[in-house]
Amino acid sequence: MGLSFLVFPSTEHTRFQHALGAMHLATKAVASLRKQGVQINDSEAEALYAALLLHDLGHGPFSHALEHTFLPDTAHEKMSLALMHDMNREFGGKLDLTIQMFTNTYARGFFNQLISSHIDLDRLDYLKRDSFYSGVTEGNINSERLITMMTVKEDMLVFFTKAIHSIEKFLLARRMMYWSVYLHKTSFVAEELLIRFFKRFDQLDKATKSSLGTVALAGLTNNKTAELEDKINHFTQLDDNDIWVTLKAASSCDDAILVALANMILNRDLLKIQIDNQPIDKTKLADKQQFFMEKLGLSATAIDYFVFSGSLSTQGYNLDEQPIKLCSLDGALTLFDASSENAHFPILTRKDYKYFLAFPKQDGYFS
Amino acid sequence: MGLSFLVFPSTEHTRFQHALGAMHLATKAVASLRKQGVQINDSEAEALYAALLLHDLGHGPFSHALEHTFLPDTAHEKMSLALMHDMNREFGGKLDLTIQMFTNTYARGFFNQLISSHIDLDRLDYLKRDSFYSGVTEGNINSERLITMMTVKEDMLVFFTKAIHSIEKFLLARRMMYWSVYLHKTSFVAEELLIRFFKRFDQLDKATKSSLGTVALAGLTNNKTAELEDKINHFTQLDDNDIWVTLKAASSCDDAILVALANMILNRDLLKIQIDNQPIDKTKLADKQQFFMEKLGLSATAIDYFVFSGSLSTQGYNLDEQPIKLCSLDGALTLFDASSENAHFPILTRKDYKYFLAFPKQDGYFS
Amino acid sequence: MGLSFLVFPSTEHTRFQHALGAMHLATKAVASLRKQGVQINDSEAEALYAALLLHDLGHGPFSHALEHTFLPDTAHEKMSLALMHDMNREFGGKLDLTIQMFTNTYARGFFNQLISSHIDLDRLDYLKRDSFYSGVTEGNINSERLITMMTVKEDMLVFFTKAIHSIEKFLLARRMMYWSVYLHKTSFVAEELLIRFFKRFDQLDKATKSSLGTVALAGLTNNKTAELEDKINHFTQLDDNDIWVTLKAASSCDDAILVALANMILNRDLLKIQIDNQPIDKTKLADKQQFFMEKLGLSATAIDYFVFSGSLSTQGYNLDEQPIKLCSLDGALTLFDASSENAHFPILTRKDYKYFLAFPKQDGYFS
Amino acid sequence: MGLSFLVFPSTEHTRFQHALGAMHLATKAVASLRKQGVQINDSEAEALYAALLLHDLGHGPFSHALEHTFLPDTAHEKMSLALMHDMNREFGGKLDLTIQMFTNTYARGFFNQLISSHIDLDRLDYLKRDSFYSGVTEGNINSERLITMMTVKEDMLVFFTKAIHSIEKFLLARRMMYWSVYLHKTSFVAEELLIRFFKRFDQLDKATKSSLGTVALAGLTNNKTAELEDKINHFTQLDDNDIWVTLKAASSCDDAILVALANMILNRDLLKIQIDNQPIDKTKLADKQQFFMEKLGLSATAIDYFVFSGSLSTQGYNLDEQPIKLCSLDGALTLFDASSENAHFPILTRKDYKYFLAFPKQDGYFS
Repeated sequence: MGLSFLVFPSTEHTRFQHALGAMHLATKAVASLRKQGVQINDSEAEALYAALLLHDLGHGPFSHALEHTFLPDTAHEKMSLALMHDMNREFGGKLDLTIQMFTNTYARGFFNQLISSHIDLDRLDYLKRDSFYSGVTEGNINSERLITMMTVKEDMLVFFTKAIHSIEKFLLARRMMYWSVYLHKTSFVAEELLIRFFKRFDQLDKATKSSLGTVALAGLTNNKTAELEDKINHFTQLDDNDIWVTLKAASSCDDAILVALANMILNRDLLKIQIDNQPIDKTKLADKQQFFMEKLGLSATAIDYFVFSGSLSTQGYNLDEQPIKLCSLDGALTLFDASSENAHFPILTRKDYKYFLAFPKQDGYFS
Repeated sequence: MGLSFLVFPSTEHTRFQHALGAMHLATKAVASLRKQGVQINDSEAEALYAALLLHDLGHGPFSHALEHTFLPDTAHEKMSLALMHDMNREFGGKLDLTIQMFTNTYARGFFNQLISSHIDLDRLDYLKRDSFYSGVTEGNINSERLITMMTVKEDMLVFFTKAIHSIEKFLLARRMMYWSVYLHKTSFVAEELLIRFFKRFDQLDKATKSSLGTVALAGLTNNKTAELEDKINHFTQLDDNDIWVTLKAASSCDDAILVALANMILNRDLLKIQIDNQPIDKTKLADKQQFFMEKLGLSATAIDYFVFSGSLSTQGYNLDEQPIKLCSLDGALTLFDASSENAHFPILTRKDYKYFLAFPKQDGYFS
Repeated sequence: MGLSFLVFPSTEHTRFQHALGAMHLATKAVASLRKQGVQINDSEAEALYAALLLHDLGHGPFSHALEHTFLPDTAHEKMSLALMHDMNREFGGKLDLTIQMFTNTYARGFFNQLISSHIDLDRLDYLKRDSFYSGVTEGNINSERLITMMTVKEDMLVFFTKAIHSIEKFLLARRMMYWSVYLHKTSFVAEELLIRFFKRFDQLDKATKSSLGTVALAGLTNNKTAELEDKINHFTQLDDNDIWVTLKAASSCDDAILVALANMILNRDLLKIQIDNQPIDKTKLADKQQFFMEKLGLSATAIDYFVFSGSLSTQGYNLDEQPIKLCSLDGALTLFDASSENAHFPILTRKDYKYFLAFPKQDGYFS
Repeated sequence: MGLSFLVFPSTEHTRFQHALGAMHLATKAVASLRKQGVQINDSEAEALYAALLLHDLGHGPFSHALEHTFLPDTAHEKMSLALMHDMNREFGGKLDLTIQMFTNTYARGFFNQLISSHIDLDRLDYLKRDSFYSGVTEGNINSERLITMMTVKEDMLVFFTKAIHSIEKFLLARRMMYWSVYLHKTSFVAEELLIRFFKRFDQLDKATKSSLGTVALAGLTNNKTAELEDKINHFTQLDDNDIWVTLKAASSCDDAILVALANMILNRDLLKIQIDNQPIDKTKLADKQQFFMEKLGLSATAIDYFVFSGSLSTQGYNLDEQPIKLCSLDGALTLFDASSENAHFPILTRKDYKYFLAFPKQDGYFS
């Protein structure tokens, strides 16, 4: 949930809770599929449970965006996999099957789909969980029903046709959670500031990094070019606590830009953010930057940290991915998108964009 | 909820609970509007609470459809109003303001909109309540948020622009509740049978009606042409219990059609119902009727009770009604449907139709 | 819940919902016990599920008290059993094992304890359900945890020692639900009036009973001395609807006592009830009766219907029944009541009494 | 909740959420009391809301126990008050009334009782919240009902007599939450280790403290003897993040004891803890210490950190505090403990003790 708690104070639930929840849903899915006659042996079941428990292992603290800062060339799935291999060595190969499912190299493809697809157990847990904790009940989904509507045909995951309204609702709820919660403008701008904080932090000399940052953080940022294996240890040591302690230390350091960014985040004294349906004009951004350089006496270096533009987007039902298949009671398969009943389809596939311009508030940090 | 409990066993909640709930939401709406500076005096508040408590007074037992059977020329709103006038006489005019709000003759129109409009307190209660009791969480709505998003401009009810996702969700949830619950094919066909039961019952002679039906029921059906005022007493005496007792008495009476209809409902041994996206062809219906007349030895009179077709429909956001208005933070009003963000709009306004053909099951009552 | 809805308007949940819920808990109990290594074969599991689904079959409409009125010499368990035998004949012996479990003639006693004991699945469902629907959260219990704390030793049901706080809580919650809900004075006095209504109804002649009552009701009350088998059919036809329709019919009949009782219940215009910790003195009752005979002009026959006294009681942990056994992690068994930690025990076993005196209200029916 | 998340993974809710919740209950209490005719003006209401929002301001990170470590001579209430005075200066006296209520120097005593008494809004929030997040439903209480049962007599808070079962339930739930959650042996031993960690940390030289600890932590522990005012700044900078980062830094430092304590907590590789109803015999402790000194080669200095004994206790209804008063419908006041109905009373007042002995696990850190 990144910095969502700045807007929704109850969203302090953790990734560990989510991992337990996703694993719990896996036990429900296995029980439901077995009841329908799908053969799943105990090793497969256990491997699936482990996959859901471990699927987010490679996430760093806070947002996806921050991961890019700490591990510029490593997707979090790659890190998750590296950590699973690490654990697998320690456990003497007990995670072999889990890793096959995770990397979709196991013959029975539906296990991978339960881990990662349009409607996987990961999303079934986090959408429901985030909707509950944020109080945005519009994003609530019926995980239990979607799971009982799953079945397996030719080792692939499909849904009973009568689940069509629940699937539609799932996709709409996901879209709604993006615009209402995950991309809420207040937590979004806070995350943009956090990314800029670490961009600036990264430019400090080694000694200062070590004095301001924690052991784990300095270890990572001072070894950008090391091999992935050598960074794993620093990365697994890093958590939200390192970020907050670094922000607190930086809030009274020598670098005015770092001080400003840290205090803005710590005191929830953020930038103003304007949302538009059209891309922000380059001239408009340049004018805004010029205005604030003069008004606040900010340098050309500083201005990019405090006046900037960009875009937000949500991807609906992605047509490039493996499509959702529906299965009628007589076993016939159809594509979800071709369903004659599915009137919402054109909307559901749309990729929505919004554009933003961020700049200092009148009564904010610089005033 | 009519006969929904045949499909969703927990939907036995009552109209009285709904009336209390709607009144409770009225207290929340008044508190929220007052907090925003809308002047509402205590008489207005009390009149609104009474209006919500009494708004469904004129409903008869079970479905809207059945009302038509018992009071062929009287909409339930007309009966509600007649009963309110009755109570108003008893209470010495204490309901004057309530009746004005209910009939939209009170100058401040937003009170009527809270009672009856696209997003009124009635719907805010029953959608949430029915979603909860049926377990169809897809239909859940955020009543609390929608209420806090309401405000008043020029004595009309409007919504803050930032409620747009919640409004969209509300309209989608309503559509989903219709297809998933209110028009569920099993309870729908049971209601069709119930309507036919009373159509047949109505054709009986007076004495038989009185012996099979209860006092209240015989009173109503034997006085079809009486003035509304003369029927009020019988109507208010009538409730679900009369329907069930009559069905039980009829289940072993002399009329084979009545016996069949009663037993089908009482034993949940209903007709098969096929749903189609196209209207049912007249020839197809005729053929089906012919087939069952021969197979089951049903008479030409009987066949219409057990083989029939028709349509179901849900109206989305109705463009003929007063539109939803949005109010930006600076007070400017726009129409919900003109909103540039509202990508779902074309879908939301659509009136959806489905068509059905009902006929005896192979292993059902007639087998 | 009898007439509890007169006090708690949301307690309209049905016995069928409870039966489904108890059966659902049975599936949880079987899954949990199997996980602990208790061998339960599929026939046993299915028999248990059926037992929970059917355990309340012999209940008549409304309260236990009313059952006594309709079937004076038949406990509802006896009727449940008679109905199970009936179904068993129809199903060709498929309920044999269920009946053995129900009558505790099956060798593995823990199945019977899951159906009927201090902490059985019946109570685990209805306490939680009734607490939820009434809003009396004080009566909520942790069914899920109590079920996972169950295990089996020598074919008897025992609880892990660490469940002691949950057991204690369960017994306290049960006591609280009795005083706060099941014996709430308003619904209690309504039930007393209902019992008296049918006592009076019973004294009518056959023809009047048939004209006022419904088919099922007249069948039962006109055949008091028939064999149980001959009454089963009338009894299974009887439900709450018959009671309400009879009350409505009686509300304007010729018998003034019946009219009064019916209207009191239908209009929730009940007697006043005074609760005391001491038994009501006979003289006090006599004086009260004398007072109202004079004041209201009631006859000596009538007075017993409207001025009467009696007692209410709740039994805590009943020492006469098979005691709850605790099982430590090393397998040693102790009695719950001997537990050194169980400080509440003396309270938990107590049988509490209250006494009541009921009489007409000043501004009630007779005024 | 201290380290409860080690046992109940969902108990990551924050003190800020609790403060918002307690303030929310204050708005409910004010609305309910006003409805009963208690005069509360807007300044009083606002002052009460602020008091509940700020009441826990003086708490440090984690447990009460740790506070003692960082501010040895300062109760957290004293620190809360110091911080309120600080804010009051900044806000130009706007918190005057809040501070009077908090310190019980305001004439109308019921405001202080709403902040701090047997059944105050603080407890009404945290018991319900902690019960919900831990899943220990046995500890759930009916906050809403208890608030509506509150009234004011002679400016003191009293409860309507009919709330007696809810009060009883409240006190029992509190006792149950202590034994089941707050004093759960696993999180309890983790907290004991954390206290010992900081005891050891405190003995380090200034430079090491600064290198291992964070700025805020070093500031506090290096200025033990400073005036309270001078410590406020360091104290308010200190939060859970400092604790975790310090533990992580210490987990690979030069001091073997610190390394052991840090790793035990970070890896949830805790001591074994035996609970007894009798105080631990001194000889038994000495023997245990001797055994582990020999077995693990621990020094006499080290042994106190890893083998130790002590007691846990819960105080029921404390007879030394201002008693709960009950108010009958006719206005008469009685003491809760004198109520003839209150059979649980002797249990409720009891102070329960348990005793523990903690020592290394066979397969734990030292193995």
